[in-house]
Amino acid sequence: MAQDHDEVENGFNSSRNDDGHHHHDKKDKNEGEGGKEAEEFSVERAFDGKEVPSWRKQLTIRAFVVSFVLSVLFTFIVMKLNLTTGIIPSLNVSAGLLGFFFVKTWTKFLENSRILRQPFTRQENTVIQTCVVASSGIAFSGGFGSYLLGMSDRIAIQSEDTNLGYKNLSLTWIIGFLFVVSFLGLFSVVPLRKIMIIDFKLTYPSGTATAYLINSFHTTAGAKLAKKQVRTLGKFFSFSFLWGFFQWFFTAGDNCGFVSFPTFGLKAYEYRFYFDFSAIYVGVGMICPYIINISVLLGGILSWGLMWPLIEKRKGDWYSADLSPTSLQGLQGYKVFISIALILGDGLYNFCKVLSRTLVGLFYQNSSPETAKLSYDDQRRTRLFLKDQIPTWFAISGYVAIAIVSIIVLPHIFHQLKWYHVLVIYLFAPTLAFCNAYGCGLTDWSLASTYGKLAIFTIGAWAGSSHGGVLAGLAACGVMMNIVSTASDLTQDFKTGYLTLASPRSMFVSQVIGTAIGCIVSPCVFWLFYKAFDDLGVPGSEYAAPFAMVYRNMAKLGVEGFSALPKNCLLLCYVLFGAAIVINLIRDSIRKEWARFIPLPMAMAIPFYLGPYFAIDMCVGSLLLFIWEKIDKAKADAFGPAVASGLICGDGIWSLPSSILALAKVQPPMCMKFLSRRTNARVDKFLGF
Amino acid sequence: MAQDHDEVENGFNSSRNDDGHHHHDKKDKNEGEGGKEAEEFSVERAFDGKEVPSWRKQLTIRAFVVSFVLSVLFTFIVMKLNLTTGIIPSLNVSAGLLGFFFVKTWTKFLENSRILRQPFTRQENTVIQTCVVASSGIAFSGGFGSYLLGMSDRIAIQSEDTNLGYKNLSLTWIIGFLFVVSFLGLFSVVPLRKIMIIDFKLTYPSGTATAYLINSFHTTAGAKLAKKQVRTLGKFFSFSFLWGFFQWFFTAGDNCGFVSFPTFGLKAYEYRFYFDFSAIYVGVGMICPYIINISVLLGGILSWGLMWPLIEKRKGDWYSADLSPTSLQGLQGYKVFISIALILGDGLYNFCKVLSRTLVGLFYQNSSPETAKLSYDDQRRTRLFLKDQIPTWFAISGYVAIAIVSIIVLPHIFHQLKWYHVLVIYLFAPTLAFCNAYGCGLTDWSLASTYGKLAIFTIGAWAGSSHGGVLAGLAACGVMMNIVSTASDLTQDFKTGYLTLASPRSMFVSQVIGTAIGCIVSPCVFWLFYKAFDDLGVPGSEYAAPFAMVYRNMAKLGVEGFSALPKNCLLLCYVLFGAAIVINLIRDSIRKEWARFIPLPMAMAIPFYLGPYFAIDMCVGSLLLFIWEKIDKAKADAFGPAVASGLICGDGIWSLPSSILALAKVQPPMCMKFLSRRTNARVDKFLGF
Repeated sequence: MAQDHDEVENGFNSSRNDDGHHHHDKKDKNEGEGGKEAEEFSVERAFDGKEVPSWRKQLTIRAFVVSFVLSVLFTFIVMKLNLTTGIIPSLNVSAGLLGFFFVKTWTKFLENSRILRQPFTRQENTVIQTCVVASSGIAFSGGFGSYLLGMSDRIAIQSEDTNLGYKNLSLTWIIGFLFVVSFLGLFSVVPLRKIMIIDFKLTYPSGTATAYLINSFHTTAGAKLAKKQVRTLGKFFSFSFLWGFFQWFFTAGDNCGFVSFPTFGLKAYEYRFYFDFSAIYVGVGMICPYIINISVLLGGILSWGLMWPLIEKRKGDWYSADLSPTSLQGLQGYKVFISIALILGDGLYNFCKVLSRTLVGLFYQNSSPETAKLSYDDQRRTRLFLKDQIPTWFAISGYVAIAIVSIIVLPHIFHQLKWYHVLVIYLFAPTLAFCNAYGCGLTDWSLASTYGKLAIFTIGAWAGSSHGGVLAGLAACGVMMNIVSTASDLTQDFKTGYLTLASPRSMFVSQVIGTAIGCIVSPCVFWLFYKAFDDLGVPGSEYAAPFAMVYRNMAKLGVEGFSALPKNCLLLCYVLFGAAIVINLIRDSIRKEWARFIPLPMAMAIPFYLGPYFAIDMCVGSLLLFIWEKIDKAKADAFGPAVASGLICGDGIWSLPSSILALAKVQPPMCMKFLSRRTNARVDKFLGF
Repeated sequence: MAQDHDEVENGFNSSRNDDGHHHHDKKDKNEGEGGKEAEEFSVERAFDGKEVPSWRKQLTIRAFVVSFVLSVLFTFIVMKLNLTTGIIPSLNVSAGLLGFFFVKTWTKFLENSRILRQPFTRQENTVIQTCVVASSGIAFSGGFGSYLLGMSDRIAIQSEDTNLGYKNLSLTWIIGFLFVVSFLGLFSVVPLRKIMIIDFKLTYPSGTATAYLINSFHTTAGAKLAKKQVRTLGKFFSFSFLWGFFQWFFTAGDNCGFVSFPTFGLKAYEYRFYFDFSAIYVGVGMICPYIINISVLLGGILSWGLMWPLIEKRKGDWYSADLSPTSLQGLQGYKVFISIALILGDGLYNFCKVLSRTLVGLFYQNSSPETAKLSYDDQRRTRLFLKDQIPTWFAISGYVAIAIVSIIVLPHIFHQLKWYHVLVIYLFAPTLAFCNAYGCGLTDWSLASTYGKLAIFTIGAWAGSSHGGVLAGLAACGVMMNIVSTASDLTQDFKTGYLTLASPRSMFVSQVIGTAIGCIVSPCVFWLFYKAFDDLGVPGSEYAAPFAMVYRNMAKLGVEGFSALPKNCLLLCYVLFGAAIVINLIRDSIRKEWARFIPLPMAMAIPFYLGPYFAIDMCVGSLLLFIWEKIDKAKADAFGPAVASGLICGDGIWSLPSSILALAKVQPPMCMKFLSRRTNARVDKFLGF
């Protein structure tokens, strides 16, 4: 799933670079189709009449205009998700649909005015897709909800460890930082693309699914369906946007509005069990596979329904009763460190698993000679893929040049990060980038954040506590994540390009442009949120950004060890670390039809810190989709992703006007408040009713 | 439309004894079909194979068991509507559907256990329909939301005229009162049924529509559709019931919960412009014709959006600023009397119109000899209709006997009502009952409440202020309304029976039993509401029962004249009285395609007192139906009434547990409160957040 998003996204293996839970079906289907293709059905024969434009012609101005618009759109969405829960579903379907819609409208308009010079091709569509994914990928790998925010004073104050160092965020250094680290990944995998795509024939399920989607759009029947899907998306987009707008009016003050709706009563609300009417997470729930939704809910029940109330009873015994509720010495500490344990357990297991599969895969690939006769599709695709080469010297010199710039610049941004730290990262990075790209091709599972955590612990420990190890670790995490994440993204895109006959050169250029757009747009969007919402990063607020705290405390653990943990917390961490590994072992050892009922520890960890409210949103989305599938499977399959994308995009885009309103100090006029009967009576008396 | 409900229902010509706004279409269609029937299509030929059971066999025990259950159900619904706004839509479709569903389930169950003795016939279905309509009709004509409640001390205190007399309500005398007055109407029209149905061939559009519905249920295709409709009804019933239940949790205290949701802001809320999330009125809006919904909304905008704010500005000039907000000397007086003026203007116009049409109709009927050759359907129907006779001596002696009992009993219940008042009413009643039944057959418009108002003014003035004229007037209104309302209902049922080959005898028996059920069930249900909700009848409360105040003040006007009205109120009353007549004149004089855009003054009058919030609910329902019709006309036509009935029934039935909870003093746990930003800040400070 090439997911490379947050901690979280390791669990969300179908949540990024894929159309969500449909992916599982598609994956198998596509593989099956791939096998039978030669005998039964050829995609490329359907496109036989259509000429493939040269790589330069695939890169049209209109494509980049549309890409830019969509990049801004998706950056807002990803940023909102980053800063609320860190769960980021795949927006590829929406990007594909909306890209198709924009260019189609554009070309139709030009056709009518008879100045159209070039028809809209699937190659151009792939270019848009690639550019948007690259730029919105920066919104994730830029760490605005994780390592970057974790460095800030706000989180340091929350975490009560300003003594360990913090760095005031500023728009300029963030943009500079992103520019020097984000392009390395691209150059590191370019030389290897032929091996991955042609020789190893890696699956890249998400890339394949995207390519099938794009191909389908450009058939006649597909275009018709796409049009209907776009209309559905538009409807739910408007609904979701207007709903966000409507909710806004009732949010004057804390604990006001629908986001604080105690759907299951005030007691349940206290433990964050409520439906918060957020369209975005209902949409996310519809896109994510059922097991993710169930896992998140299970995690919520386990933590906020069971563990936290039990630990709370030990107040005064396990931890001091006088602590502030956000102190990491108290209950908050259990929440943070236990979720870290679960995340690390799951991460470690999957790291070992994917690495071993990578090695095994490489070994067998090399030993098995290519014997199978190539199908018509494969022949045509391979010919076009190999036509436009990117010289290896170009890739290597590009990598070295950027690395040198980076080694010089980075220590100036982060004084705690020395030039030799960066050099070491860059020596290892290409190997890790290759591993990640290869593993992702095999398993659809990007381990970007796991590699990031590796960097946190190693570089953090190397720098040492007294030399600002926490900040050095977080910065190193950023460098590492950006490289490995873009590497797997680009390879994924090469696969998509291979299947849609888009040139590797146009893919590369598109990804470079997309990355550049992302390096500017993402920090600006983040800055808007950061300035508009003063309580960004505060637990319980609208933009709680849970992973900022988690990343900072991981860095602290790496530097300081377990000394800061409250009583029995370490024991619980060990238990849950082990549990994560055991659950994964069970998942992989039992038969596939049972394995899909085993929850994912990574997904379970998110509500540990945040509370299960968003899990309830997601389950509502999941339930709606489930009922829809029961009623009309065909329609649900065709329009479910469009509905979900509409809900996500609408609510996500509402965060733009909402943050502008907050910046302009325009406050909502009303508060929808929820009071217990007793409190209400007191308030009524106070107000003199 | 045989509507005989409240003030209101004069305007709601398709809202009772009909399936709402579909009626208009159906009316024309049915008339058209009636004409073409002989040549093209015979309903009765489709039923040729099926034997018509004897009238005794049409009266099965199961039919009355089902009728009783449905009677209770519909009494709750009608009562809730009575006591909230007085707008009562037709529940005939729901009654038909649910009756069909219950007996079908029952027979299916018995079929499986092989002890079924008798198949379910359309005649039996008509018997159920008749019985339910008769019993739930009492819930309207019993005046629980109008004259009866208008007598009570609660309304007298509200109206600040306890000196004019009031009567403490008690379950026993209400039941006694209903029993002595409700059966007279039945006996008064029995001798005339042949003239109305066979000789005059009156249309009775609602009765005809109901008969077509029942006939269609008993064809194979119709039964299939009915089953689907029942399923839809069931779904929306559950939704609406659960929604009512969910809302309850948030209503601890005044102005709490969804019913106080300031959808359009707090300023609009102050003037009662808000959507109150009540499923029942969304359903009512779906059933009522578009023009009713628009009229109600227009009335709301005219009064609460324009007139009341303007009059409020004259505070201290037109009326004293020191008055309590519910004083009739202040703004409240304008609200009450202006709506009375509008209602009386509309009532007077329609009384004259229907009366003149009745006389013209009678004149032409008698002069035109019956020449047209009877179709197969008509022959068969007429033969069966004339087979089972009800002797005229039986009807007359029944009427006289009940009248004597009534003349003796009524003055014992209402000391202000003398025996000669009652005698005079009973001398005129058969004529008025005939007029109403005949007018209803022609125009589908029951003037029951208009005849009731006539009684208020005449008997009230006769008794005089010093002899308790207010109470005498209200009691006389009850006597009159019950007679004329049941008379038109029964004739309507005879028409339905004629078209479904149900025997007049079984119709009569069913109506008698239904009326008896209604006389017991309605007061009991009312009593539940009356005891459970202490603020019943208080303006602004959930059960505001606006017409109780309106009726009481009409009686007061009749007795005392215009002396009590605040400044300029009488002038405004004259203007709106005149406007009501002019609007009606315009409506009747312009071409039909334009006339349907002219609002109905009666409908406009309701929000004058209550506020436009329920009009917004209704318009939402209307809008939903409109959109549905745009998307899929066939489906909307087939399932719209089922959805609406489901919404109405679910919310209506929720009032049963809700009143039981209120009686048991179980209070909701939470309050969802809406505060302005400023007030919210004060409250937060007070609560120490």
